[in-house]
Amino acid sequence: MLANELPLSTNDSQGAEPLIFKPLGIDTWQEHVIYLHPDCTVCRSEGFAAQARVQVQIGDRRIIATLNLVGAPLLETAQASLSASAALALAARTGDVVSISHAPALESVRALRAKIYGRRLDGGQIESIIRDISAGRYPDVHISAFLAACADGRMNGRETVDLTRAMVNSGERLVWDQAVVADKHCVGGLPGNRTTPIVVAIAAAGGLMLPKTSSRAITSPAGTADTMETLTRVALDAAELRHVVERVGASLVWGGALNLSPADDILIRVERALDIDSDAQLVASILSKKIAAGSTHILIDVPVGPTAKIREDSDLERLEAAMRHVADAFGLQILMVRTDGTQPVGKGIGPALEARDVLAVLQRTVAAPPDLRERSVMLAGALLEFCGAAPPGRGTRAAGSLLDSGTAWRKFEAICEAQGGLRIPGEAIFRRDIVAPHAGKVTAIDNRHIARTAKLAGAPMRHVAGIEMRVRVNDEVRAGQPLFTVHAQASGELDYSCSYALAHPAVSIAPH
Amino acid sequence: MLANELPLSTNDSQGAEPLIFKPLGIDTWQEHVIYLHPDCTVCRSEGFAAQARVQVQIGDRRIIATLNLVGAPLLETAQASLSASAALALAARTGDVVSISHAPALESVRALRAKIYGRRLDGGQIESIIRDISAGRYPDVHISAFLAACADGRMNGRETVDLTRAMVNSGERLVWDQAVVADKHCVGGLPGNRTTPIVVAIAAAGGLMLPKTSSRAITSPAGTADTMETLTRVALDAAELRHVVERVGASLVWGGALNLSPADDILIRVERALDIDSDAQLVASILSKKIAAGSTHILIDVPVGPTAKIREDSDLERLEAAMRHVADAFGLQILMVRTDGTQPVGKGIGPALEARDVLAVLQRTVAAPPDLRERSVMLAGALLEFCGAAPPGRGTRAAGSLLDSGTAWRKFEAICEAQGGLRIPGEAIFRRDIVAPHAGKVTAIDNRHIARTAKLAGAPMRHVAGIEMRVRVNDEVRAGQPLFTVHAQASGELDYSCSYALAHPAVSIAPH
Repeated sequence: MLANELPLSTNDSQGAEPLIFKPLGIDTWQEHVIYLHPDCTVCRSEGFAAQARVQVQIGDRRIIATLNLVGAPLLETAQASLSASAALALAARTGDVVSISHAPALESVRALRAKIYGRRLDGGQIESIIRDISAGRYPDVHISAFLAACADGRMNGRETVDLTRAMVNSGERLVWDQAVVADKHCVGGLPGNRTTPIVVAIAAAGGLMLPKTSSRAITSPAGTADTMETLTRVALDAAELRHVVERVGASLVWGGALNLSPADDILIRVERALDIDSDAQLVASILSKKIAAGSTHILIDVPVGPTAKIREDSDLERLEAAMRHVADAFGLQILMVRTDGTQPVGKGIGPALEARDVLAVLQRTVAAPPDLRERSVMLAGALLEFCGAAPPGRGTRAAGSLLDSGTAWRKFEAICEAQGGLRIPGEAIFRRDIVAPHAGKVTAIDNRHIARTAKLAGAPMRHVAGIEMRVRVNDEVRAGQPLFTVHAQASGELDYSCSYALAHPAVSIAPH
Repeated sequence: MLANELPLSTNDSQGAEPLIFKPLGIDTWQEHVIYLHPDCTVCRSEGFAAQARVQVQIGDRRIIATLNLVGAPLLETAQASLSASAALALAARTGDVVSISHAPALESVRALRAKIYGRRLDGGQIESIIRDISAGRYPDVHISAFLAACADGRMNGRETVDLTRAMVNSGERLVWDQAVVADKHCVGGLPGNRTTPIVVAIAAAGGLMLPKTSSRAITSPAGTADTMETLTRVALDAAELRHVVERVGASLVWGGALNLSPADDILIRVERALDIDSDAQLVASILSKKIAAGSTHILIDVPVGPTAKIREDSDLERLEAAMRHVADAFGLQILMVRTDGTQPVGKGIGPALEARDVLAVLQRTVAAPPDLRERSVMLAGALLEFCGAAPPGRGTRAAGSLLDSGTAWRKFEAICEAQGGLRIPGEAIFRRDIVAPHAGKVTAIDNRHIARTAKLAGAPMRHVAGIEMRVRVNDEVRAGQPLFTVHAQASGELDYSCSYALAHPAVSIAPH
């Protein structure tokens, strides 16, 4: 008799033994991996080999995962294990029955191949690719090929608009009842540039609605969410966020719990691995998050400098044109502000150290870094004018008054209280100065070396770790004078960080 | 005191405990993975997180691997484990001391990014990329981005020549003392098309030197190396190959042990995952292997058909132009032969079943499939003429005589004896017919469904598994007549294969 009743894509055919979940506790970060014994029935009958992409199901939940093979004693033929991310996605518990089948053929891969072969994609094709990416159905090699195929202007304005829309549609969307919903974004690349909490406090004190959601650091020593987490609770869900904004007009939360443009997080992870950044991806990444957050007026801070992300004014102009094209398509108002990107901002680099700078500026103490204060007031003023909350040309003065009067500080306290209470960031146990090898004048500070040193010290994972800057460009220094202080929670991390700092001098000093 | 003497990129700094290798037996195929405890000193001090790319060293050997984190009880903080491929590459033994450091920055990634951004690469840049790929220093996402960046004609003729040269330089190169060294290649996509052993036997019997190296199947039910392995020993090293060819004038070995164009194997693996095939990659892939093998005259069989790899004559013309450009640059003679790609060739599909067809043709038995015999004679004749071993227009007749007289069979025996002895392939235990659901005439056979059915039956891993075709296009069939027979070594595999075959009819029958 022919076996024509057999379901092809499950492992419960005759003779196949059921697979039982056994946790092994292997962490592969965001990559889903399933571990099977090479002689298990499903591997033999389906012909699965290591690195095959398979569909894994427990109960009603299913994911696509990469197959790794593990023999005894870790696994028996009737057992299956999952990487930490896969176990989480499937809510797997010891003893659960795991079903394995061939990963479904992805229709959107035809569109991906069309793009690789240089064709224009329509909105439906882009939507199908982004839907599969955000559902975790693309292996990284497919995502990487998509990014490479779209780089170098191979994605035009219309495709960038479609990409942005598809990314917005990949997640949740917040809706507010105000005509003007302000937002503030920095394209990044400048250590210590933690103006966002200050700008939000000033602008909200000036009457703007500002439901700010931020990311954690991906490759930098701190993201705004990391910094804010040393001061208050940031992992709020959508209902909690709405409650905070309705109460105090603004928020400073982590966007990760809100599922806004989740495809963006996946694309960014692979982009960073490749270290490529196309204009189309950058624009869709930034604006999809803002559209999903319900913003109408967005100020974008673009630091320009030789070791910043944007290195020349011509890059800024190209980015601005692409940004404006997409913003227009969605009826968004954007204001691009070029700022100085030649050196770190403020003194602290790392979550807690930056939080201390933020507090010092808002509380108007003598420790407040003047450059951080000045930049925050300028940006807040520009945002107030842009949103019609200050007359043209009067924004900076209005912002300065809101800060100096303590109104912004009280607003910041109210935001933190609404989110779960204000707390004071901790301090590192281990510290060591990196000193000037000779006397002279500081001519340049390398943002990338500074960021790397702060990360080797433990930032952002260890909140109190990082760097405290002691000099700025144009300062005169004498031999042996501290240039910056490394803060760490473990002596090993302090050693590593200092060793790197000595091998890669971040502060250039011209002798007299 | 400042720690300026510390080596930055090793884990033997003060306080770091040495890591001891503990095998866990995890198979990730070709992807090198290292498993560490999340709280091990090197993870903490270097800030390594899961999926980081790290350099791993045991003794003098070092590789780049992807980091996965594993807690107790599998690993303690002072232990490290390696995936099977990584352990093999490092010759790791239980108790070895494992050193971990940051993966070195790859200079060639600048060239990769330049290509992604649409620039032409010079020979040195292409060489640097291929060198890093063949040394295993590129993660798959980088390889994938490289392939996507080079597709759609974004690599010109000169770059394709440079790519081919770089791939040749990535491995060993064979040198022969004859002016004419013949080779024969098929671009693939046609199940059962196992003409190579027959063509080699005839052409060598006709006086040609033919040191043939073949690959194992990558996505097909059998490669020539898999088929030959059921008949003789194929994993010969370069010295053994030379000895065989000097003795009998030809070989039929697996190329994998010879390290010819190893970069090609890595690129193909990622190409298959993406299911993309650019002309530049295909040309460089085929010709780099042939140049490395020392061939001078290459016949390339290109089956054209609606379910073959090359589907239209226009694709063939474009491929031929690209192929000829590169061949000219290296002084290679190539002859492209268009063949019928509308249905499988011979009866058997799968290593042992194809080997039986090969033997039947060479031994002139009644079981010899006429289409396989005819195609092999035509190709061997074309090769004899092309290499000057037969007068123009007389090749087919000469080839036919060499086959009919038994000379080709004796040459084949001699080749197998020289390689280690001729053996007879086995037979499968489980068989089941797939029959015609109704009477009519066979109008088409889908190569892809046939190949998939043979693979689900166990081919090529289980040598005796596969399909035996029982009909050809234009045959008349009655209801219930066998269309093909599935051969398997396990009843579960037989069921799976038949279930797929019934759900995806490969043989189209037009009722009368």
